[in-house]
Amino acid sequence: MKILILGGDGYLGWPTAMYLSNRGHDVHVVDNYLRRKVHAEAGSGSLTVIAPDLATRVGAWREVTGKTITVTEGDLTEWSVVEQAFREFPPDAIIHYGEIPAAPYSMKDRRRCVLTQYNNVINTLNVIWAMNEFAPDAHLVKLGTMGEYGTPNIDIEEGWLEIDHNGRHDRLPFPKLPASFYHCSKVHDSTNIEFACRVWGMRATDLNQGVVYGIETEETRLDARLATRFDYDEIWGTALNRFCAQAVIGHPLTPYGSGEQCRGFLNILDTLRCVELSCLNPADRGEFRVFNQFTEQFTINQLAELVQRAGKECGIDVAINPVANPRVEKEGHYYNAKHTRLLDLGLEPHLLSETLVEHMFDVISANRDRVRTEHIMPRTTWRSGRMIRADEMTPRQARPVDELVRD
Amino acid sequence: MKILILGGDGYLGWPTAMYLSNRGHDVHVVDNYLRRKVHAEAGSGSLTVIAPDLATRVGAWREVTGKTITVTEGDLTEWSVVEQAFREFPPDAIIHYGEIPAAPYSMKDRRRCVLTQYNNVINTLNVIWAMNEFAPDAHLVKLGTMGEYGTPNIDIEEGWLEIDHNGRHDRLPFPKLPASFYHCSKVHDSTNIEFACRVWGMRATDLNQGVVYGIETEETRLDARLATRFDYDEIWGTALNRFCAQAVIGHPLTPYGSGEQCRGFLNILDTLRCVELSCLNPADRGEFRVFNQFTEQFTINQLAELVQRAGKECGIDVAINPVANPRVEKEGHYYNAKHTRLLDLGLEPHLLSETLVEHMFDVISANRDRVRTEHIMPRTTWRSGRMIRADEMTPRQARPVDELVRD
Repeated sequence: MKILILGGDGYLGWPTAMYLSNRGHDVHVVDNYLRRKVHAEAGSGSLTVIAPDLATRVGAWREVTGKTITVTEGDLTEWSVVEQAFREFPPDAIIHYGEIPAAPYSMKDRRRCVLTQYNNVINTLNVIWAMNEFAPDAHLVKLGTMGEYGTPNIDIEEGWLEIDHNGRHDRLPFPKLPASFYHCSKVHDSTNIEFACRVWGMRATDLNQGVVYGIETEETRLDARLATRFDYDEIWGTALNRFCAQAVIGHPLTPYGSGEQCRGFLNILDTLRCVELSCLNPADRGEFRVFNQFTEQFTINQLAELVQRAGKECGIDVAINPVANPRVEKEGHYYNAKHTRLLDLGLEPHLLSETLVEHMFDVISANRDRVRTEHIMPRTTWRSGRMIRADEMTPRQARPVDELVRD
Repeated sequence: MKILILGGDGYLGWPTAMYLSNRGHDVHVVDNYLRRKVHAEAGSGSLTVIAPDLATRVGAWREVTGKTITVTEGDLTEWSVVEQAFREFPPDAIIHYGEIPAAPYSMKDRRRCVLTQYNNVINTLNVIWAMNEFAPDAHLVKLGTMGEYGTPNIDIEEGWLEIDHNGRHDRLPFPKLPASFYHCSKVHDSTNIEFACRVWGMRATDLNQGVVYGIETEETRLDARLATRFDYDEIWGTALNRFCAQAVIGHPLTPYGSGEQCRGFLNILDTLRCVELSCLNPADRGEFRVFNQFTEQFTINQLAELVQRAGKECGIDVAINPVANPRVEKEGHYYNAKHTRLLDLGLEPHLLSETLVEHMFDVISANRDRVRTEHIMPRTTWRSGRMIRADEMTPRQARPVDELVRD
């Protein structure tokens, strides 16, 4: 299968490229190194040492495995880049990781908010138009996020909801309450892609992914030059990855607020298998298919306690010091998100264990001198504007504070 | 009240500016003449003769009424323009018409699609950030569209839907099935604005407007230089306005497809009153309020027949020649959209009548030599890509064709 991977230099994009190349697919990756540039601008970076560019990565891959991954270095918001990639490599499937994925980044200031939405929405529109022109039968596998749904007070279904209202019925897109301007950008993408499926008969699978953890895959372990990036800072690092880095360097774990926020999580190995399963079982023509891509739900406190227990096993004394929540979000809420469709396709989850966390400790320990501690504590707040006072709130807006549903 | 009108040179923006100035408000308008430029590029234009720029318009307004409207000529996608407007004119209310409003334009090709979403999403993000920084207590009155909802098989509520699901309940954003990439851009705006209300305590009213008809208002009639634009072409002209122009020049009316598509409509006079009512009754802090802004539902065939009857009264023989539908849309469908909230605030609708249509004929007749007939027939198709064949459709996608619900 000819598979085009957009964002192929990223934390997930690069391991996905190797994983699919290793399984006999013809893989072409596109990336403009935006993540590397933004890190350089901020003075932060990957904990792991990664090869300097895609040419080095695919060269090492060829040397180690004899397999070829081809590369376009370019920005998908430029039509000429997208057009050339689709002309030179007409794909059967497009795996689209090529977006700015950080909620805090999008909330930091206007410039970063606009860049996030501009980059994500415009490059996805370009991909939609390119598919329509050059690869109308291809299948778009788009990475979305569970954060598009937010925390509604009802079960979260996989993308669509059967609704009975005033005696009539329809199946409609699941309502979204995105959690940041970044999450909004993913909702915009879903809206555009659902429209293109409905009107142009495009095939698409929207993978609403949970929070990914893990450092290594079968392929990254083959050679040091094949390592993938690992972010542990307040902007790009996600909950479990960040906690593991904090544990290793002796920094207290920093749950935000009460720590009772509940989310879906998955191992990086399951991400690779999920996108593979999606490619091997494409959506029908005209179908906008949504899978909730995670394997387990945890509260942030549960993660922190797991890391603390794993630390004890390794002789590391891990403290937990909650910090004031820099985000505006419900801290106690109902959360029950369905995630059966990828299991139905054959996913066999790698569930989270202390053993996995201890293994992450080992990899982090080997790189502990590279941790820049000044990037760990949250400095980005959702409340960049004037704060809303409780007495200014409408009953509707006050509700999340009043009804702390804990099921 | 200090009211900032974005898109103040447009079909609705300019009459709104005069209407509110006439009622004692302090009005500042912003526009970059994008609509005029796009018309110039296409060789099309307004049926009515309009003043060449905002300076001429507000000069005539001052001369005729003694009242002052101030102006910024600039592009709201540029932060410096937005920042300066908010610094120099800190508003109590912002009426945001400043978007590219044409479904066919957004479907014509990739460039126009991207321009539509770029312009609409980015300039609205700039407005949101400017409000947060310079006018956190101000009220955003944002023009959305009924086309965001599409044609679901359930009653359309005003922006929010009470949902019972698996024994639990929540009030969530009404699911959207937008009808074009333009309509998608308005959904994106709604998503961003709802988020800003929820997280920053912004005040916003999203006016999901139906199709507007009419040429004149109390203020445009005061002086020829105060006329507003009137589009009748396939890209910018809307159903009733286009039919009236066709009738006057002896062109057959052109319903698309079966003509059984049902939509909400309103008189331009009611648009002015609705935005005024919204400004005078602002949303609460943190409230994302949605009003469905139309007064009557009609099928396209009902409009065509009304124009035909009005023609008979005036001695004009009006033919109706349906054309193949250039859009991808359901032609027979359930449609029942609620629209009580503006009535509750005091809206007294100007309902559609043959008399109104005959009056539109008079204004159009006076300008009939300006009609460029080559821009009337639809040349923009929603099916710019490869067509989807019925046998490739999934059951879900085929459903709209199978279930022609007619209530």
